[in-house]
Amino acid sequence: MQTDLDQLCVNTIRTLAIDGVQKANSGHPGMPLGMADAAYVLWTQVLKHNPADPTWPDRDRFVLSAGHGSMLLYSLLHLTGYDLPMEQLQQFRQWGSQTPGHPEHGDTPGVETTTGPLGQGFANGVGMALAEQMLAAEFNQPGFELVDHTTYGIVSDGDLMEGISHEAASLAGHLGLGKLIYLYDDNHITIEGNTALTFSEDVHQRFEAYGWQVLAVDGHDRASVSRAIREARDETGRPSLIICRTHIGYGSPNKQDTAKAHGEPLGPEEVRLTKEALGWPPEAQFLVPDEVSAHFRTALDRGADTQGKWTALFEHYEEAYPDLAAEWRRRMAGALPEGWESALPQFTPEDGPLATRVAGGKIMAAIAPALPELVGGSADLHPSTKTYLDAYPAVEKGMYQGRNFHFGIREHAMGGILNGVALHGGLRPYGSTFLVFSDYMRPSIRLAALTRAPVIYVFTHDSIFVGEDGPTHQPVEHLASLRAIPGLIVIRPADARETVGAWRFLVEHREGPAALLLSRQKLPILEEADANGVARGGYVIADAEAQGPQVILIASGSEVALALEAQRLLAEEGIAARVVSMPSWELFEAQPQAYRDQVLPPEVVVRLAVEAGVPLGWDRYTGAHGEIVALNHFGASAPYKVLAEKWGFAAEPIAERVKTLLA
Amino acid sequence: MQTDLDQLCVNTIRTLAIDGVQKANSGHPGMPLGMADAAYVLWTQVLKHNPADPTWPDRDRFVLSAGHGSMLLYSLLHLTGYDLPMEQLQQFRQWGSQTPGHPEHGDTPGVETTTGPLGQGFANGVGMALAEQMLAAEFNQPGFELVDHTTYGIVSDGDLMEGISHEAASLAGHLGLGKLIYLYDDNHITIEGNTALTFSEDVHQRFEAYGWQVLAVDGHDRASVSRAIREARDETGRPSLIICRTHIGYGSPNKQDTAKAHGEPLGPEEVRLTKEALGWPPEAQFLVPDEVSAHFRTALDRGADTQGKWTALFEHYEEAYPDLAAEWRRRMAGALPEGWESALPQFTPEDGPLATRVAGGKIMAAIAPALPELVGGSADLHPSTKTYLDAYPAVEKGMYQGRNFHFGIREHAMGGILNGVALHGGLRPYGSTFLVFSDYMRPSIRLAALTRAPVIYVFTHDSIFVGEDGPTHQPVEHLASLRAIPGLIVIRPADARETVGAWRFLVEHREGPAALLLSRQKLPILEEADANGVARGGYVIADAEAQGPQVILIASGSEVALALEAQRLLAEEGIAARVVSMPSWELFEAQPQAYRDQVLPPEVVVRLAVEAGVPLGWDRYTGAHGEIVALNHFGASAPYKVLAEKWGFAAEPIAERVKTLLA
Repeated sequence: MQTDLDQLCVNTIRTLAIDGVQKANSGHPGMPLGMADAAYVLWTQVLKHNPADPTWPDRDRFVLSAGHGSMLLYSLLHLTGYDLPMEQLQQFRQWGSQTPGHPEHGDTPGVETTTGPLGQGFANGVGMALAEQMLAAEFNQPGFELVDHTTYGIVSDGDLMEGISHEAASLAGHLGLGKLIYLYDDNHITIEGNTALTFSEDVHQRFEAYGWQVLAVDGHDRASVSRAIREARDETGRPSLIICRTHIGYGSPNKQDTAKAHGEPLGPEEVRLTKEALGWPPEAQFLVPDEVSAHFRTALDRGADTQGKWTALFEHYEEAYPDLAAEWRRRMAGALPEGWESALPQFTPEDGPLATRVAGGKIMAAIAPALPELVGGSADLHPSTKTYLDAYPAVEKGMYQGRNFHFGIREHAMGGILNGVALHGGLRPYGSTFLVFSDYMRPSIRLAALTRAPVIYVFTHDSIFVGEDGPTHQPVEHLASLRAIPGLIVIRPADARETVGAWRFLVEHREGPAALLLSRQKLPILEEADANGVARGGYVIADAEAQGPQVILIASGSEVALALEAQRLLAEEGIAARVVSMPSWELFEAQPQAYRDQVLPPEVVVRLAVEAGVPLGWDRYTGAHGEIVALNHFGASAPYKVLAEKWGFAAEPIAERVKTLLA
Repeated sequence: MQTDLDQLCVNTIRTLAIDGVQKANSGHPGMPLGMADAAYVLWTQVLKHNPADPTWPDRDRFVLSAGHGSMLLYSLLHLTGYDLPMEQLQQFRQWGSQTPGHPEHGDTPGVETTTGPLGQGFANGVGMALAEQMLAAEFNQPGFELVDHTTYGIVSDGDLMEGISHEAASLAGHLGLGKLIYLYDDNHITIEGNTALTFSEDVHQRFEAYGWQVLAVDGHDRASVSRAIREARDETGRPSLIICRTHIGYGSPNKQDTAKAHGEPLGPEEVRLTKEALGWPPEAQFLVPDEVSAHFRTALDRGADTQGKWTALFEHYEEAYPDLAAEWRRRMAGALPEGWESALPQFTPEDGPLATRVAGGKIMAAIAPALPELVGGSADLHPSTKTYLDAYPAVEKGMYQGRNFHFGIREHAMGGILNGVALHGGLRPYGSTFLVFSDYMRPSIRLAALTRAPVIYVFTHDSIFVGEDGPTHQPVEHLASLRAIPGLIVIRPADARETVGAWRFLVEHREGPAALLLSRQKLPILEEADANGVARGGYVIADAEAQGPQVILIASGSEVALALEAQRLLAEEGIAARVVSMPSWELFEAQPQAYRDQVLPPEVVVRLAVEAGVPLGWDRYTGAHGEIVALNHFGASAPYKVLAEKWGFAAEPIAERVKTLLA
């Protein structure tokens, strides 16, 4: 039953949105006007949440994949009683406000993920729905549905055009994620005009092909929307897409159904006319009628009640299953098990030579039992990336108790899904592919960094030493381009021992994403390597004997062994060289200046960096008198030892280069 | 009619492929074994090509999107008479060979594009088919079908899982590219195992949803494949996908239909067994029976004949349409029209302030009539990126004479399609989106650089000064990460005048891709700016008066004006500062050392770089005594002038920083 009050509530959402955008003189009014009806139904009749506790683990998740419609979400959060006061809506898009232009997880209570770059939220929701199923499989017990929530989202034409939506939807269908329900804002308008300009695919048929239930409704017919959501909830074996035919800019006399409504303020006059058309006091600003406020805020009572029942359930659960409950508490707090690090293996030179990807696989296998939250997979490359946890099953449709994902050849969805799993909570996800293909998932890596999602990336085949597969498969610029992302920790360990240190750091680092770059080729296990040095980013792995160094060799990953060998050659000629292993620039930069100066004494100006990648950025450490042994070009297809020889990645030419530098 | 000779030919392809992989001890035998039947039909019965002239403009294009099956392509090229001798097949994956691990355009005659990273070839082919239709619309005349070729491709499960395939397929269906025909190698196997692990979508239904004709055949039934290709050719209004059910590793007794056949040599024993199973002399290596060779090489006669007829047609065309023919010759040669640069507009300070994106739009509009080859579009952002050529129509289904593409919200497909258009020849494509979304198309940008495809990227909204849209839309690491790609020229002009210089460079630079980074916000047009300075990458835009400089300010883009203002403030205090505008690092690095030292005299060690992005790489120019005004973090949602003030992007704090540096 829809009432006048419902209509008033919907129009409150609409007018708050257009007022917010107008006051900011910037933003996207069209989508909130168009989707207010459907969102209202979802948020007031369906969504299980407690605005007073946005972190309640069993809340439904809501993802606004069409993040440009942020004022829709902020209005809903404010109205239903989240700690987002009206002043924040009035500070939309202003410095320091909790209402940034696109929703940012962490800035605003109730914002589950950061959206705006299209398609990302779509994949995040798949990750959240997956996490829900996995935690349910792990923790639920007969009579104790501790984990039982649904992931909802609003997705746009743009989301569905982006390739990541295809990847994520195909996988969601494959996995039968029945508790994933997306409302598609089918408004026929994009920035360049009508979707008919470029988007004539049959979305209905396409999503059926993915194995989704597809429903279609008039997005302004709230009763139909409500029925469709119920139908979607009743379908437990397939995700659901509800195609809501809507009118962008609904109510705006001159802009409805045009691209003009999408991305700019309506303008004061059109705001007035829209309010008139909606039967709203045309001069009122940020008006919330009392009865509207009261109606929305029943969400607080309902939320307290629902969460209260869940808490009572949890208390019984804790009595019946104390160990599981303790594990649940630990996992939800994001704490680590006491002493987990004793599971880390140790490597000695005799265990080598060993590719760091293989070392990584051994480390993961060793720590996996101690860290049940560690789950992940690869974009169809685990036999190469060595990231499959053999002791555990794969996650499959209807069988979510596994720990291994088969992402398929879908790097971008992998990235977006990892973010969703991480933001859901309770699990520590990792994802793996070849380093060169990190490019395919880069938009999701960026968002992991921006949201500080604790995702672990295992990128193997980390240099031209991939060899025969050739330049299409040989990363050269990727180390630099990952280092460029603020908030992403990049670690390229020199050997198996540093890989242990890297994994220790990765597990302990829960403030953001980190990427582990591992070699395809075998590497010696270095007597000198210090697992504990990794967390400092760079350390003296071998110093010049007796005297102070004349020259510093700085290297990462597979090139550290070459630098050590060059050091020995130089020592034979009486040249005192220090070798610094630098697995992570970000971690090194986070050290106190005194430590950095100790590792790289400013007075030792003759320096040579060695890294099988582009030189970009190394000047910071080599300075005006230093040089860089690197690659200013793409790789080539040949056995890797040939490439090493052709391009000077060997001890002799490095030693020669040092001698020239000193001369 | 299939004959014994056909079978012998197919098995020749198969055995060459497995021998090549085995000799290299590296590679992918499974796909060539599985797709040899279908590829044989295509290459011997259908493909219009002349192996003696791989650059004949009206040849059919063949794209091996599943690039790991490179030995299939190399075998076909060798057998049909391309200049790829047997020794090259025997040098598969070796240093300096023409047979790299994955096909590389430019290395091997007949390789139309570089593939391997999955999904890219799929999109490249869409670009090629689009280019064909556009050139046909432009050049064909009644009775003169000068342009009339088809684009074929082989695509794999992996290609279809990648998001870019969704984007490109949706657009190809929308545009009704009837001369695009893909054979899908439906072999049910990926690296991690059976496709059932992760890929259960209904591909048939999915492609129908995109508006494709979908046909399904037994990929080993050559007569069926042949019929299906004919049926696909008969469908002129829709692209066609022919689903070929195949057996990966066909013929290998122990590896057929398993992931083992995919990515590693069969091993000497299994090679022997496979040859036996195929009725091949088990010990023969790289065997091409004489009758097989003779049969394949009829392609040379057919090719000469077909191309000869086309040449005769062109001669008649030249008589009937001398102007068009001259234009055709110019375009195919990639030459520029005499005096095109006189179309470039000039800007004076009085024309400003002007956002460089707006200046860019004016420049494009001005040069478009002189450069009919310039075609392109945006990923649904042209009202913001200003890249629409208003004087020309859009490219639409059945109406390909336009010059504007509506790519939709499909950055990745845009990137892949641009590569295809550029590699096809005859057109100079550009593509545009916000700089922050360059991440979505990065794998294609990388391949443009690797293939030296002359694609132009127009990336606007180039810094945090996007403002209110917030950090999801504000690039900070993108300048650095694009600079990291070898072979990509990145240009960030300071104002409208430098934007003119940039466009002049872009048009003249046909040896690879280039990215133009433009501001959202208005910028003053600088009296001092030198359009001709852009091609040198960096130049002294304003020197210290009278005396030599005590300090050098280096900036790019919107920060140049700030540096100039800081220079004036410093001059008032008697501090002599030089300002260097550095729109392109790559172009600057390509200058002689003498020029670089003239711009950045080594003896002036006090230097300050100013750029609204991450500082990565600037140390190269600022040195040990310099500093960098940059951002080590993401942006924020607020009006851009507030951001500039908060983060010190203003003349006063820059001048203060210089004074501290000098002190």
